[in-house]
Amino acid sequence: MPASPIRKLVPFAEEAKKKGRKVYHLNIGQPDIKTPEVARDAVKNMPDLVIEYSHSAGNESYRHKLAAFYQGIGIDVDHTEMLVTTGGSEAISFALMSTVNPDEEVIVPEPFYANYNGFSVAAGVKVVPITSDINSGFALPPIEEFEKVITSKTRGIIICNPNNPTGYLYSQEEIEALGEIVKKHDIYLFSDEVYREFCYDGEKHFSAMDLEGLEEHVVMFDSVSKRYSMCGVRIGTLVSKNKEVISTALKFAQARLSPPSYGQVAGEAALDTPPSYFEEVYSEYIERRNFMVEALNKIPGVICPTPRGAFYTVVHLPVDDADRFSQWILSDFDYNNQTVMMAPASGFYSTPGLGKQEVRIAYVLKKEDLVHAMETLAEALKVYPGRTE
Amino acid sequence: MPASPIRKLVPFAEEAKKKGRKVYHLNIGQPDIKTPEVARDAVKNMPDLVIEYSHSAGNESYRHKLAAFYQGIGIDVDHTEMLVTTGGSEAISFALMSTVNPDEEVIVPEPFYANYNGFSVAAGVKVVPITSDINSGFALPPIEEFEKVITSKTRGIIICNPNNPTGYLYSQEEIEALGEIVKKHDIYLFSDEVYREFCYDGEKHFSAMDLEGLEEHVVMFDSVSKRYSMCGVRIGTLVSKNKEVISTALKFAQARLSPPSYGQVAGEAALDTPPSYFEEVYSEYIERRNFMVEALNKIPGVICPTPRGAFYTVVHLPVDDADRFSQWILSDFDYNNQTVMMAPASGFYSTPGLGKQEVRIAYVLKKEDLVHAMETLAEALKVYPGRTE
Repeated sequence: MPASPIRKLVPFAEEAKKKGRKVYHLNIGQPDIKTPEVARDAVKNMPDLVIEYSHSAGNESYRHKLAAFYQGIGIDVDHTEMLVTTGGSEAISFALMSTVNPDEEVIVPEPFYANYNGFSVAAGVKVVPITSDINSGFALPPIEEFEKVITSKTRGIIICNPNNPTGYLYSQEEIEALGEIVKKHDIYLFSDEVYREFCYDGEKHFSAMDLEGLEEHVVMFDSVSKRYSMCGVRIGTLVSKNKEVISTALKFAQARLSPPSYGQVAGEAALDTPPSYFEEVYSEYIERRNFMVEALNKIPGVICPTPRGAFYTVVHLPVDDADRFSQWILSDFDYNNQTVMMAPASGFYSTPGLGKQEVRIAYVLKKEDLVHAMETLAEALKVYPGRTE
Repeated sequence: MPASPIRKLVPFAEEAKKKGRKVYHLNIGQPDIKTPEVARDAVKNMPDLVIEYSHSAGNESYRHKLAAFYQGIGIDVDHTEMLVTTGGSEAISFALMSTVNPDEEVIVPEPFYANYNGFSVAAGVKVVPITSDINSGFALPPIEEFEKVITSKTRGIIICNPNNPTGYLYSQEEIEALGEIVKKHDIYLFSDEVYREFCYDGEKHFSAMDLEGLEEHVVMFDSVSKRYSMCGVRIGTLVSKNKEVISTALKFAQARLSPPSYGQVAGEAALDTPPSYFEEVYSEYIERRNFMVEALNKIPGVICPTPRGAFYTVVHLPVDDADRFSQWILSDFDYNNQTVMMAPASGFYSTPGLGKQEVRIAYVLKKEDLVHAMETLAEALKVYPGRTE
């Protein structure tokens, strides 16, 4: 695996910090939101004297409670139709290893979460991209584009909804269109729904799990990382009504023995997080998003679609090369001793050359910091030598 | 991956429990020893309000302290020569994926830890077994046996020292002999040392990391699971002075984002576990081992070598088929309403047909329970219809 464009920037960010500059991290999906107290307290109060292995599929009590949670949001599954995984990451790995043979293919709309590539490489699976476009706000590409690349080697389609990196929220119609093509070709629909709870402007999330007649085809990835701002506990879920997928994935789960015990305790307790927590989080993100989208679109030459979900946006910048600009702003620029770190979008495209004028920005910082970060970005674009428009 | 012989027994054990029978679990490596208080307290007192991702290689503070720990036991590594992994399991996966291509081979003395097979299957790697023998106490097979199976596809040798499942502790001479062959053929020596702290009878552990001139060849797996009886925290280490191995493994580590935060806090604090803890643990295991080996060898037809390390032993039983016997004792037998669950050794051999008269027994139960378990096993062997000797 080649180093991603964002990782190449790390030494430049470190160098900037050594020079005493404040670096605003717009590059990562690590929210600054507090983990719910109920989850942290459950870990503090864990009575166990021996921190033992759990069931390879995850604690049964947790799976029962998770099933109730999913049923509460309209996803009809029971505790046998899921595995607790070590982060959403492991759910993706297990799903690919359980369903796709080496040299077979999965189709993914690009730009996409860069780690889909990493897990595919590890499983020997080839990623076939379908390009979505900033001018449509990164909506699902026309379904004919999928038809064009489906071959006898295609085993599935991966979507992330709401989307990382674009913030796009797929409509029920788009998910249904995917469901039809998946059924027609008898392949899988892998639906990464870890940002499900982050939908804005009154839009409703439609889960791929709710596609009728697609029970054997849909595999959902979920995680507590974003929902409860506890990325470090490393707890996710692999969900499917396809019993063969679950039983094959369980074998991989047994090989790694069990998911983390402390994290499962935190995850189970987090299901009791009061609604007020989510209301606060929602208000916080909406305020950040609204501020950021407006601030970005005010900068001459910058185009920022309004993301309806997650906490990212992919932005067009008037620059020759977003990789170069992202490095330059860290190494050669400061505004009042501040600078910003962004994720060049080239790392989210699998088609070479795409995303050259785009970056992903995560709005996981408090508004005060976002204000400074946006000012800094605007000033940088005024003086960047490779400005194009 | 086929279901392992031990997993096939699970429903029979559940059935026995439903009948009200006490089932002694000699089948698993989950110790009943308490996790050190200093580790549990560190988690309880963790001040963080946001449980964040850590560095993909693990917290730097933890790696520094781990390096000091290794230096203290004569293994000369620094914090850049290791990655913190999600259990020892992930260290094995990352090492294989980083060094062995699909269709290449690794040689493993059998019987071996069954999950080496699982991780190899996942990485597309072929396991080539070399058989060790109960009559030599499962010592390292003659080095000529390794020479015989080394081909252009061989990328390394995996050893587990002290050994799971046999309890055999490799001598310095054996490790050095492996070092020579590894150097001669320019392959890797993967040394699983998760049971390092469990060496008995005054025997010293010799780490493969201490082989001179083999710095580029040796990759060590380690874990806090057994050392501190905290299997559930899922924290291990991948250690190598080979910078390319570490940097390739880091890419896999970055794809899964980070190891568990709570576990790392427990692991770091556990390094301050007082020596008295280990003295107690040592006394406990020695007493259990001595009792068990004596009790087993007293049963007519049973042969149990004296294990010098870990907390397992592979035992010869006078039965037609240990898989069948292990199932029968759960389903058709009880002694004073008690029965035992053992791991049929067939699951630890990769050569078909081997281990038919052997089981692995873990002495992770308190002595009082071991007494009942050994009595039960002795009585069962008196009446088992498939008895052979």
